[in-house]
Amino acid sequence: MKFFSNKENIIYAIQMVQRAVSMKSPLPVLTGILFECNDNMLKLTGTDTDLTISCTIPVVTEIPGAMVFPSRYITEFSRKLPDGDIEIEKIKDSNMATIRYGQSEFNINGYNADNFSIPEFQSGEIEFIISSEILKEVIKQVIFAASNDETRPVFTGILAEIEKNIMTLVATDTFRLALRKLSIDVNVENLINVIIPGKTLNETARILGSSKDITCQIGKNQILFKTDDTVILSRLINGRFPSYRQVIPENHSALVKVKLNSLLDAAERASLLVVERNPLVVFIVQDNNILINVRSENGWIREKVPAETNGEKLEIYFNVKYLCDVLRSCNYEEIYIKLTGAYTPAMVTPVTGDEFMSILVPARPARNE
Amino acid sequence: MKFFSNKENIIYAIQMVQRAVSMKSPLPVLTGILFECNDNMLKLTGTDTDLTISCTIPVVTEIPGAMVFPSRYITEFSRKLPDGDIEIEKIKDSNMATIRYGQSEFNINGYNADNFSIPEFQSGEIEFIISSEILKEVIKQVIFAASNDETRPVFTGILAEIEKNIMTLVATDTFRLALRKLSIDVNVENLINVIIPGKTLNETARILGSSKDITCQIGKNQILFKTDDTVILSRLINGRFPSYRQVIPENHSALVKVKLNSLLDAAERASLLVVERNPLVVFIVQDNNILINVRSENGWIREKVPAETNGEKLEIYFNVKYLCDVLRSCNYEEIYIKLTGAYTPAMVTPVTGDEFMSILVPARPARNE
Repeated sequence: MKFFSNKENIIYAIQMVQRAVSMKSPLPVLTGILFECNDNMLKLTGTDTDLTISCTIPVVTEIPGAMVFPSRYITEFSRKLPDGDIEIEKIKDSNMATIRYGQSEFNINGYNADNFSIPEFQSGEIEFIISSEILKEVIKQVIFAASNDETRPVFTGILAEIEKNIMTLVATDTFRLALRKLSIDVNVENLINVIIPGKTLNETARILGSSKDITCQIGKNQILFKTDDTVILSRLINGRFPSYRQVIPENHSALVKVKLNSLLDAAERASLLVVERNPLVVFIVQDNNILINVRSENGWIREKVPAETNGEKLEIYFNVKYLCDVLRSCNYEEIYIKLTGAYTPAMVTPVTGDEFMSILVPARPARNE
Repeated sequence: MKFFSNKENIIYAIQMVQRAVSMKSPLPVLTGILFECNDNMLKLTGTDTDLTISCTIPVVTEIPGAMVFPSRYITEFSRKLPDGDIEIEKIKDSNMATIRYGQSEFNINGYNADNFSIPEFQSGEIEFIISSEILKEVIKQVIFAASNDETRPVFTGILAEIEKNIMTLVATDTFRLALRKLSIDVNVENLINVIIPGKTLNETARILGSSKDITCQIGKNQILFKTDDTVILSRLINGRFPSYRQVIPENHSALVKVKLNSLLDAAERASLLVVERNPLVVFIVQDNNILINVRSENGWIREKVPAETNGEKLEIYFNVKYLCDVLRSCNYEEIYIKLTGAYTPAMVTPVTGDEFMSILVPARPARNE
C-alpha cells in the first residue's frame, strides 16, 4: 500500500469513522482504523462490531493495499500534520507503515488488515432517501427520551415504525416519551417495526453535516445510512418495544398555550435551585400564566410565564430536568401543554400540528413543600 | 440595599471577581461574593484571603447597602437572566435578597456583609503603569516555568526584580527557567525583589482584556493591580528565590538558529509517541538541520527541521513537554538554541534580542534508546 493525500482529507475521514472504534475492544485490531487503498480511493473503516462507519476519500494511489492503524495515534497525529502532501506507505511484509511529511517521517506499528472483520449488510427490505437536515432534527426531537440503562436494551433504542409512507420514531425511558412522525418517499405494504440503537442515531446525526441527503436501508437485523462518502451500518436491537399508544392521553382537562422559549428559560432558572435527590418543581396553571415554583435551603424561585390557559386550574410536579429536555429538543415557537390531572401524564405538542408529541410522567413530591 | 442593573453588567462583574472566591473556604461567608452598593455604583468583591478581586460597575441605586451572595448560585443564575432590567433588593433585617426580572423573582439566601473581611492594601513602595497587552505577554512568557508544587511555595511564584527602570520576571521549577525583562516607567533607587504568586499573575492576565493600561503597586507584603474597573490585591510569597543568575550559561559550544513554529510543530508531533514515565526525545544538531527523534513500542518519529547550526554537532535529551512549553510561551519568529554539551543546560533566546531567555535542563535517558 502506498498513496498520497493531504492533511484535511485524512483528518476528515478519521473524524467520520473514529467514533465507531471501541478503544476497549478485546480484539486489539478493532481498536484501530482500517485503511484500504485502491484505484485512487482510500476507504477508512472503524467498527465496534455493533456499529460500523466507513468513509471514502480521493487519494493518489501508487500501490493498492490495506493496513490497520492504531486509532489513538493516527487520530492525534493527523491533527498535527503540516499542510501539504502526505505520503503513506506500508512497509512490505510487516504491519508497519511510514508516514512522510515535509522532511520528516513517522513509522507507526499497526495491525494486519486480514484480521479486521467488517460486518456486512444483508440486503435491505426497504430503502428511502431523506434530507439530512430533517433527519438531524427528528433525531434530536426523540433521542433525549431514550434511556442510558444498558440492562434494558429496548429502552436505549428508538422505535422506527413505518406504515405506508409515514415513519414514526418513538423513544421512552418510561419517565418520558417522545414521538415524531415524518413522511418518507416510499410506500410500504406491511408495517415495519424496528428498534435502532440510540448511539447509532447519535453518530448518524453527527456526521450528517457534510451531505444534503442520506439514503436509509432497513434490513432484517440491520440498518444502513449512506451519504456521498460515508456509510453507517448498525445492528438493530432485538426485543419488543413497549406499546406506547396506550400511554398517550386521549383527552385533557387543562390546556396551556405558551411560548416555548419563555417556558424553557423559566424552567432552566428554576432548575438551578433543585438538588439531585429531589429535582422537582411545581407547575401551576393560573388564569393568564403559569407559575414554576421551586424552594430549597438556598432560597426560592417563582417564575411567572404568560400563557393562554383553558380548563382546569391545577398544580402538577415535574422533574425539571425532564421538562427542560423536552423543551430543548424542539424548535417550535409555541407549544400546547395538555393536562388531565396532577397525577396523570402531561402531553407537550407544537401548536402547529401533531408531527411531534412528548409525554411527561408527573413526579410525586416526597414532602409537600 | 436596592438597585437596578442589567444582565451584561452583572455577569461581567461576577466573572471578574469569581475566580478569587475559594469554594472550599472554611468560612462559608468567603464562598460568596460581596455586593456593596453606593452612589449608583456597585462593587463586587471575591477573596480567598490571599487573592482579592474587586470590580465596580454603574447601577441605579435606590437604597445603599451590602450583602454577600453565594458565589455558585449567583454566577449560574446571572447567566440565565433574561435581557432587560434586573432589580436586586435586600430584605430588611435578613440575609436574603430578592432578584426581580420580568414578572419573576429569585429569593436567595446569602450572608451578612459584616462578616466578610477584605484584606486591605498597605501603601505601596512603588507604583508604575504598564500596557495590558505587554503585561499579558510577559506573564505568558514566564509562568509556564513556575512549579505547581505547593510544598515549595517559592517555586510556585514569579520573582519580580526591579532595578532602576528595568523589571525582570523569573520563574523556575528547577527543571526549566524562564526570564523576561521589560522597562517600566519608574526609576527605583533600591533594588526591589518580590515573589508574586503564580495564581495572581494568571488571574491578572485573564482579566486584562478589558483595559488598555494597568497600574501596579508593590507594597511590603502585597501587590496590587488596578484597571479602570477592577482591582486585584494579592499577598506576596515569603522566602528567598534561588539565585538564578548562576544557572545561566555564559558560553556555548553549539549555536542553532531555527524557526520557532517549525520546531514547535516537530516537537508536538514527537510528543505524541512519548510515554509519561519516559517523556524524552533526542535533539540532534546536524549540519543544516536538527533532528528530533523518539521511539516507543508504537513506532518511531524522525523530525527534521531546517536550521542554521554553528559549532559542535551534539545530541542532547529533552523532556519534550518542557521543550513544547517554552516554544509555546513565546511569540518570536526565530530563536537561538545555545548548547554547551549533552549534560549541561540549554538556553533558548529570541534572535532579536535578550529581553527573553529560557533555560532547559537536559534529561538523562534511563536506557540508551
